[in-house]
Amino acid sequence: MTTETYSLDALFKNARVASRKLARADRNLALRTIAGALRQNSVDIVKKNALDVAAEEKKGTSQALIDRLTLTDARMEDIAVSLEQLTALPDPLHQVYEGWRLENGLEVKKVSVPFGVIGMIYESRPNVTVDAAALALKAGSAAILRGSSNALNSNRILVDTMRAALVEAGLPADAIQLIDSTDRAHVTTLLEARGKVDLVIPRGGASLINLVVDNAKVPVIETGVGNCHVFVDATADLEMADEIIFNAKVQRPGVCNSAETLLVHKDVAADFLPKALARLDERVELVGCERTREHYQHVGEASDADWETEFLDYKLAVRVVDDVDAAIEHITTYGSMHSESIVTQSLQNAKRFQEDVDAAAVYVNASTRFTDGFVFGFGAEIGISTQKLHARGPMGLNQMVTHKYLIEGDGQIRA
Amino acid sequence: MTTETYSLDALFKNARVASRKLARADRNLALRTIAGALRQNSVDIVKKNALDVAAEEKKGTSQALIDRLTLTDARMEDIAVSLEQLTALPDPLHQVYEGWRLENGLEVKKVSVPFGVIGMIYESRPNVTVDAAALALKAGSAAILRGSSNALNSNRILVDTMRAALVEAGLPADAIQLIDSTDRAHVTTLLEARGKVDLVIPRGGASLINLVVDNAKVPVIETGVGNCHVFVDATADLEMADEIIFNAKVQRPGVCNSAETLLVHKDVAADFLPKALARLDERVELVGCERTREHYQHVGEASDADWETEFLDYKLAVRVVDDVDAAIEHITTYGSMHSESIVTQSLQNAKRFQEDVDAAAVYVNASTRFTDGFVFGFGAEIGISTQKLHARGPMGLNQMVTHKYLIEGDGQIRA
Repeated sequence: MTTETYSLDALFKNARVASRKLARADRNLALRTIAGALRQNSVDIVKKNALDVAAEEKKGTSQALIDRLTLTDARMEDIAVSLEQLTALPDPLHQVYEGWRLENGLEVKKVSVPFGVIGMIYESRPNVTVDAAALALKAGSAAILRGSSNALNSNRILVDTMRAALVEAGLPADAIQLIDSTDRAHVTTLLEARGKVDLVIPRGGASLINLVVDNAKVPVIETGVGNCHVFVDATADLEMADEIIFNAKVQRPGVCNSAETLLVHKDVAADFLPKALARLDERVELVGCERTREHYQHVGEASDADWETEFLDYKLAVRVVDDVDAAIEHITTYGSMHSESIVTQSLQNAKRFQEDVDAAAVYVNASTRFTDGFVFGFGAEIGISTQKLHARGPMGLNQMVTHKYLIEGDGQIRA
Repeated sequence: MTTETYSLDALFKNARVASRKLARADRNLALRTIAGALRQNSVDIVKKNALDVAAEEKKGTSQALIDRLTLTDARMEDIAVSLEQLTALPDPLHQVYEGWRLENGLEVKKVSVPFGVIGMIYESRPNVTVDAAALALKAGSAAILRGSSNALNSNRILVDTMRAALVEAGLPADAIQLIDSTDRAHVTTLLEARGKVDLVIPRGGASLINLVVDNAKVPVIETGVGNCHVFVDATADLEMADEIIFNAKVQRPGVCNSAETLLVHKDVAADFLPKALARLDERVELVGCERTREHYQHVGEASDADWETEFLDYKLAVRVVDDVDAAIEHITTYGSMHSESIVTQSLQNAKRFQEDVDAAAVYVNASTRFTDGFVFGFGAEIGISTQKLHARGPMGLNQMVTHKYLIEGDGQIRA
């Protein structure tokens, strides 16, 4: 559809109206009803999804992307189960964070309340359609979803199924809405809908995040771009360091908390690099600085772009640095403020690294791969925030709400 | 200076470098040193300020604005005292918000850390120059200040004085920098400095806030636009209601938490309006709806613009509504999500109003004038946030910091 024939205005208004009913509604009942409906419609959903998959196969899309796009009966069951698990988590709304009484007798309470309308912009994976809608619903906000064009058939039937279930559970269908269009202009409209949309959360790669930040007039939480580092200090346990960098790079390279660059203190480079790089070399393309290449031959020359890039792949940049300050300086220059790790036995350097590295999660002697809402025990995750407002690091349900102050008096006026 | 001759790039870089030293520095010593330097330079500061004041008087600027611009010896002393009071407040940094241990033995701590570089854009009052710089400093962030053109002489000497004091206290001068230019283009440059500036806080009227939100590519906290309402419900104690609306409107009409519109339940309009409006009429210009004008003659006809406007003056819009829902609907349509108050004896309506009105501060039986960081007991205030990310309502020092996760292990890798 074109911008002329498809306007988002009604969608924004309907979302606002629906959102006002959610804080008091039985949101867990709605989640259970949605889970049941997705199970019941599973055959049809998988059929519609096959249209999207076939179209991508025709285009010659990579197998990895096809896999991300594909829904199966088993995956639908996983999605339904995850909704049921969400019902077991505490309600992030109606929490009293703090409360006190002023000298004049006014009672002040700071309580959690919904954002209202949350826009989600994300790429290929249709399971995000359910995941994002369900998290917004549990947090009491209406969701406006903009998935990628290549998943439109899947997203349509998923959203239709969820909307029908909402009505069945006595909630307004418009608590979940899809931007049913592949027109990029609608993304901009969503990003400019100040006062109509309270928050937009983009989930995707650097180009999506940049598009969003450049165009947004609504509040945005940037998520998910991770150019993460592991620094092996002079006093590191080198076997531990070997395990940590191998895990951080290889265990799941396509995710944002995997490592992209290895930094090694010059004093241990000769001891550490030959063995560690030989092990990585079996599965990982290596690029590095001059000094790195002196210690291990099969390393390409690293360009400035390599230090900056989130490879999301079996590729690692390696640099020898003079000391912990040089490592911090490198991370400050090239990092994306996501997850950073130092391997060290020095208490002083551990402390210095944790204090001076400006990132959402700063590790001592552990893999960067643990930055994750589920691992952190939040029970759910909408993404990893790499900015500093409101939420930083894994965003669970408690980060998907805002607050207000409730003040009760008996006629107080200001002197 | 023009854009060509004055570049902000060095300023951004210097702020970043300076910011990294602040978390560990003796920021209270710096604040005390600044207070002393401002006292010592008071005569010169007042002289420079007189240049700004004279220029405005020549232009025929209103006495109220001239007053906001003027610095005197007494006001300089007040400013110095407020800096000393700031030193008595707890450090918002290095706080451990929460901490826990994962099953795999990783220790997770969520701790408060500085934003880094905070940009402040504000209007006429030169005392804000000191106030904003001091709050940023106490919160461990470097401040980049953009005051208004008509206070440039004042702002220059204030910032020079503060920078010299920083150096005297062993801190980097660049922790406080002034954008020494009246070129609007520099505001845009500041707002687009993504990655260089971590947060921009505009303090001013609706047009400034809109300029900022429209142009910002950096995170922004909107502050200070208050279109606040008082709703007198059917069961209200009418004498209490009279006191509350009079206080909310008249006690200090030029501030954001003063009331701009009075809403009255139709069942008490005849009892309440004649007396309450007669009292207000002595000092306030009244505009109102048809039904209001039936109850009190000296009321102009209210336009839609009146419902939307933050008068910041002795002017009040008055509307008779059918019930609490109609009051909430009016506030939802026209309010700025700042401060809203219901006067009622009905528990049900009090609860409904507090739940359904989407604002930073929602009052029962009290004046809206209490929404203020000092009144709330925060000990300081950089502004009242009217948006929902990170800070909502009065922003004190604890809202001027962000957090990170520190994770310590002994070799943990992800399975």
